[in-house]
Amino acid sequence: MSTTDGGELRVGLVGYAFMGAAHSQAWRTVNRAFDLPVQVRMTAICGRDPANVRAAADRLGWQSAMTDWRELVARDDIDVIDVCTPGDSHAEITLAALAAGKHVLCEKPLANTVEEASAMATAAAFARGSGVRSLCGFNYRRVPAVALMQQLIAAGRLGAIRHVRAAYLQDWIVDPEFPLVWRLQKDRAGSGALGDIGAHIVDLTQYVTGQRITGVSALTETFVRERPLPSVSSGLSAGADGRGLGRVTVDDAALFTARLDGGAVATYEATRFATGRKNALRVEVNGALGSLAFDLERLNELEFYDATRPGPEQGFTRILVTEPEHPYLAAWWPPGHIIGYEHSFTHQMRDFVQAIADGTDPAPSFEDALQVQLVLDAVLRSAGNDSAWTGVDPVLTTA
Amino acid sequence: MSTTDGGELRVGLVGYAFMGAAHSQAWRTVNRAFDLPVQVRMTAICGRDPANVRAAADRLGWQSAMTDWRELVARDDIDVIDVCTPGDSHAEITLAALAAGKHVLCEKPLANTVEEASAMATAAAFARGSGVRSLCGFNYRRVPAVALMQQLIAAGRLGAIRHVRAAYLQDWIVDPEFPLVWRLQKDRAGSGALGDIGAHIVDLTQYVTGQRITGVSALTETFVRERPLPSVSSGLSAGADGRGLGRVTVDDAALFTARLDGGAVATYEATRFATGRKNALRVEVNGALGSLAFDLERLNELEFYDATRPGPEQGFTRILVTEPEHPYLAAWWPPGHIIGYEHSFTHQMRDFVQAIADGTDPAPSFEDALQVQLVLDAVLRSAGNDSAWTGVDPVLTTA
Amino acid sequence: MSTTDGGELRVGLVGYAFMGAAHSQAWRTVNRAFDLPVQVRMTAICGRDPANVRAAADRLGWQSAMTDWRELVARDDIDVIDVCTPGDSHAEITLAALAAGKHVLCEKPLANTVEEASAMATAAAFARGSGVRSLCGFNYRRVPAVALMQQLIAAGRLGAIRHVRAAYLQDWIVDPEFPLVWRLQKDRAGSGALGDIGAHIVDLTQYVTGQRITGVSALTETFVRERPLPSVSSGLSAGADGRGLGRVTVDDAALFTARLDGGAVATYEATRFATGRKNALRVEVNGALGSLAFDLERLNELEFYDATRPGPEQGFTRILVTEPEHPYLAAWWPPGHIIGYEHSFTHQMRDFVQAIADGTDPAPSFEDALQVQLVLDAVLRSAGNDSAWTGVDPVLTTA
Amino acid sequence: MSTTDGGELRVGLVGYAFMGAAHSQAWRTVNRAFDLPVQVRMTAICGRDPANVRAAADRLGWQSAMTDWRELVARDDIDVIDVCTPGDSHAEITLAALAAGKHVLCEKPLANTVEEASAMATAAAFARGSGVRSLCGFNYRRVPAVALMQQLIAAGRLGAIRHVRAAYLQDWIVDPEFPLVWRLQKDRAGSGALGDIGAHIVDLTQYVTGQRITGVSALTETFVRERPLPSVSSGLSAGADGRGLGRVTVDDAALFTARLDGGAVATYEATRFATGRKNALRVEVNGALGSLAFDLERLNELEFYDATRPGPEQGFTRILVTEPEHPYLAAWWPPGHIIGYEHSFTHQMRDFVQAIADGTDPAPSFEDALQVQLVLDAVLRSAGNDSAWTGVDPVLTTA
Repeated sequence: MSTTDGGELRVGLVGYAFMGAAHSQAWRTVNRAFDLPVQVRMTAICGRDPANVRAAADRLGWQSAMTDWRELVARDDIDVIDVCTPGDSHAEITLAALAAGKHVLCEKPLANTVEEASAMATAAAFARGSGVRSLCGFNYRRVPAVALMQQLIAAGRLGAIRHVRAAYLQDWIVDPEFPLVWRLQKDRAGSGALGDIGAHIVDLTQYVTGQRITGVSALTETFVRERPLPSVSSGLSAGADGRGLGRVTVDDAALFTARLDGGAVATYEATRFATGRKNALRVEVNGALGSLAFDLERLNELEFYDATRPGPEQGFTRILVTEPEHPYLAAWWPPGHIIGYEHSFTHQMRDFVQAIADGTDPAPSFEDALQVQLVLDAVLRSAGNDSAWTGVDPVLTTA
Repeated sequence: MSTTDGGELRVGLVGYAFMGAAHSQAWRTVNRAFDLPVQVRMTAICGRDPANVRAAADRLGWQSAMTDWRELVARDDIDVIDVCTPGDSHAEITLAALAAGKHVLCEKPLANTVEEASAMATAAAFARGSGVRSLCGFNYRRVPAVALMQQLIAAGRLGAIRHVRAAYLQDWIVDPEFPLVWRLQKDRAGSGALGDIGAHIVDLTQYVTGQRITGVSALTETFVRERPLPSVSSGLSAGADGRGLGRVTVDDAALFTARLDGGAVATYEATRFATGRKNALRVEVNGALGSLAFDLERLNELEFYDATRPGPEQGFTRILVTEPEHPYLAAWWPPGHIIGYEHSFTHQMRDFVQAIADGTDPAPSFEDALQVQLVLDAVLRSAGNDSAWTGVDPVLTTA
Repeated sequence: MSTTDGGELRVGLVGYAFMGAAHSQAWRTVNRAFDLPVQVRMTAICGRDPANVRAAADRLGWQSAMTDWRELVARDDIDVIDVCTPGDSHAEITLAALAAGKHVLCEKPLANTVEEASAMATAAAFARGSGVRSLCGFNYRRVPAVALMQQLIAAGRLGAIRHVRAAYLQDWIVDPEFPLVWRLQKDRAGSGALGDIGAHIVDLTQYVTGQRITGVSALTETFVRERPLPSVSSGLSAGADGRGLGRVTVDDAALFTARLDGGAVATYEATRFATGRKNALRVEVNGALGSLAFDLERLNELEFYDATRPGPEQGFTRILVTEPEHPYLAAWWPPGHIIGYEHSFTHQMRDFVQAIADGTDPAPSFEDALQVQLVLDAVLRSAGNDSAWTGVDPVLTTA
Repeated sequence: MSTTDGGELRVGLVGYAFMGAAHSQAWRTVNRAFDLPVQVRMTAICGRDPANVRAAADRLGWQSAMTDWRELVARDDIDVIDVCTPGDSHAEITLAALAAGKHVLCEKPLANTVEEASAMATAAAFARGSGVRSLCGFNYRRVPAVALMQQLIAAGRLGAIRHVRAAYLQDWIVDPEFPLVWRLQKDRAGSGALGDIGAHIVDLTQYVTGQRITGVSALTETFVRERPLPSVSSGLSAGADGRGLGRVTVDDAALFTARLDGGAVATYEATRFATGRKNALRVEVNGALGSLAFDLERLNELEFYDATRPGPEQGFTRILVTEPEHPYLAAWWPPGHIIGYEHSFTHQMRDFVQAIADGTDPAPSFEDALQVQLVLDAVLRSAGNDSAWTGVDPVLTTA
């Protein structure tokens, strides 16, 4: 089992693209913003291209750069492995890291298949016995407005939940000339909009309601079925290289209805074809006593309708979630001084580091992430079976 | 065939509750706001309770009051029958009126069953040959912002349509003590949220996109299954009378995904349990070149994203649809002086009266309304069959 | 003194342009929407052009048309004179009507000068002794959200008022080719943006706060000093006729700071040059315990910040002012079904008719309107005196 | 003259409260987010309390801690002095730093008096001749939406500017029990809301319009004139210590009208008593061809009305300013992933560092900041002279 050495927590990051940069800023910042019992050291970053990973280390603030993740996992001076690679390598790296006794933070979706996710959850459960901590990076749980949403529902403020309405809308591949990057290839990404952004709304809605999806009816669509082959493919942008067209093997959009185990019904939509919607993760929950609504494009705000207030004064209250008594906000600026997307990662690192220091298990666990994977799997099965109602398989707990 | 007599159009209205009042104000106003070739006369109103219908005639401005719709339909001095009763009597009244050569405006949904709606559409098609006009009252088509939405899409401003996202959210029966009014009884209302408000979003989205729904996958839910028996039941409000509980026989909510014949995919949700959402009919359409979004609670506004504009200036433009060049608006007030819900009915009457005078067929026709009914029928069949994908039956044209 | 005859209230309207049309719809509607002890009769409309006033009578629903307001005022069968002419004739018509024992509803601003307004207030005070009622048409007081704002402040919900922030923004003369209509001529209109729309925000803010402006510091500006002479000039639109340019003799914009007698400080701005703002009357009031904000372009909404709520739940609540318990709303449609600009006039007529029937004095009285005129006068004096602080003269009460 | 040593820029920061923390994060981040020709070193932080400054150094990432700013300024290994102290010490520290050949970044307002600000501007002008750079920290210029606003106006998109409407609304001292912190004492802070937040809107509106204020008419108000004496006073929060009350010697609110040298008229309001408004810096500019509106509480958005678009499509476009072609945004996350308050400081440091490296003068210069001070001075003089119109004194240029 890994321990922190002299009050330090030494991190090794695998991947240096979009998620690698987001995690790096969070690791750099977490001890500046929060009082923590241990000090994070950004020990090593790992990527396949030697020059690129070296440049990334310098730019992002890592003490060393490596090209072989197996060597990184084998290092004695690393306590945490942070996995920011595409989904097809999550399982292999994570399993090796857990086996080496490292704490693991793995980006979402946990894996490209239920089989892999299941193996990872099982390994994490075993490792937990030795004090090894694991966390799946559903960072939006740590947006303060989302955390407040969860708190208000947990406190019973909405009463019985009736409706969940969730959409994650982007538009970055509307142009049919946008090239065939790895996120559009099933062997690399597992699925398309569903796994990339649909996974977020599945996790987020289950988290805030405290209810789990029991069954779904789904359809998926690929609007643009062939795209130019890319010359380079990094993160969300790329150029084409004139080598011709390749087949898109993932969904551009996934839509499904669902039932949750507390009695709510739900609609979900994840798409990369909602022109004009850049990062519109929207969730609304309607309960017997009130409602809550959130939009990631205005992530410092939460709309709360409290039906127990006097009738003529009822309405949706726009809470500007920037007060010191709001989750995570005491660490930042005075009221009304808003924070951004990247802060959700800093908050995630704070909770992860604190849990490691406390010897407790952070959430969402790999089992939680496996359950999300099981929902996504049910979605794909339903979509492949004429939208027939499809139950979500249970998480087989190992502990 | 009915003709207008001396430039007059003599109207007989059946029903005097919520819809009766809304239609009455529209009949009173249409010649004041619009230049029309004929003058509307509010000749008679008809309802079952003699005292109530007499009071309604006085209040709403009708020249006479009657209690037997058959007598109304038989009157020589009536040109138009306007049907505002609950759905279970639409077919009988409408068929009689068409047989008597009256123009008919029938509230939506056209009927409680496909069979009735089909008979009505057939009768309307036959009557059309004799110059008799018929219109189904999907009044929201005549909200200026909705009409503008239709115009922009028809002009190709969105390009290929990818997504339709429609919800009609109300909350008037969230309280389990709200009594069992006729709108909660299947034999009177046909269905619940689905037929009452779901019908609107089915019609509206098909209208603005110019595409028809080809198949659906649906679920319905009744959250509160028993309610107090009502003492009186008028419109959307009622009191309970202590006679005990009765069974709710309609859906509180209906959710479905759909495909449209032009290639778009869609989510639909109709509910009376969205706490805090009073009359939130929301439609968003995403196309390859832009997007449009509308919310009935802000019915003077239309959001338009034009992806062909220069990149750094793109965004959703909030068009305040109150300019004289916007649909219907030249009849009203200066720019920025907003109109309300009731104006949609005045606009509907304007188009209906103009079509009668011109000898043309107004839209939506009974065939259009039958097609909506066929969608609702597919929704109920899918919901009753484990959400299995269910095709929408074709409208059998009779002409 | 005029009395209602057999439960009827017989109205004579002077003017048939924009305001004439708005008042006509309200007179037509008031007995349809509200239960009132008397029935309004739209007896006569009066205007200078015989053909136009005849057409207006037919279009707007008046029983007769006249061209001489003196004859109208002299008629025995008229109980109420409704004055909708440009401001330069308000005093003459109103004084004659009061002398003839008619109840008078006079559009705002009450007059073009303090002298005229003072004479009118004096006459109204005398007539009051004989049971003659008078009202100045600051219709926005009767927007339900504004009435609710007044109620909440009167109930102490904001505590001590600290700030008032009011703007009335329009843009209909931004184009320098827009012709020199009567509203841009000092001899007809008295002042420009100040009297036309500035008067509204002066009245509205004093009404909702229950405080009066004691002094001001002002500046005015005329951005476009010459405009094409108009061929016709009706309401807010007009054509030019090629006769050359004329001088604009009123303000395009008026800006001032103020102090209110309860200790609040305020900013006011009225302009016709706020491009893109069509009818944006915006008022915000900040108090020790909360705040309220209103925008006429979204007139069914009121924003309420209640600082006595639990800290983490505080925020501006968007109250959709469409509930039956909200002011005036029980007369209209179900919750969430919004109303428009014109309804404010119907509400005004309701209160005026009810006051006449009850034998009480409606508000705002002519004294109230005179006081607004005194504020406008102080604004113009300050603007003409290097913005020096200028006290508002007291209303000299006559009763 | 200070030069960068081996591609490094060694910074010494004075002050470790709110602004100190905000600047520290920016210094830490600037080389991570932006490609810059020099590398920032956070060499030393300086503050009066030895323990506190030591803790701040550790927390905020500074290599050393000091208690005497004179020693800091004298160090050879410091290239830049960053002044984040209260306004009463700006002049002394800045003048010493400039004299020592250090580049200086001084927080706003530049000084508490025109005399001090003038001396600083003069010193900066002299130092400029030796290649020493100076910048006043009006960080909101570097909010991307504000920078975009400036670009659009500079490109002529609004045409002639008619109106500026600016307010900076906060509410942190509404509670009369909030103690008498340094920001409420004239000898420390110079003025109250006026200098603290009013300075921001003066600078920002002049920056985006490219016009300067030529005269003002003002009033100021102190609503709560005595407050509990504080036990500690750090940043915006503090506790009281029961030592009794002290007199508030600054304004709680300042309101003024203004004229700009390009012909626009303007209203300004700065207050700490706008209950519910936490950090609402709002600016709207109306021009002959369009309008722009910004609200700091939604700092990733800019509203743009383009009156040259086709009439029926005009409206305020909500630009989500998160695209890579928007100012500063290429350094951050994909479109729609919003940034926060603190990023404005990182952008400021980027421009400052780049200017030092390039040997050019960054903006706003100390002359620019002196001009803001002259506006504030005119405001206070007008407020003390019955709001009489008061011209803004010219900046006496020294170069």
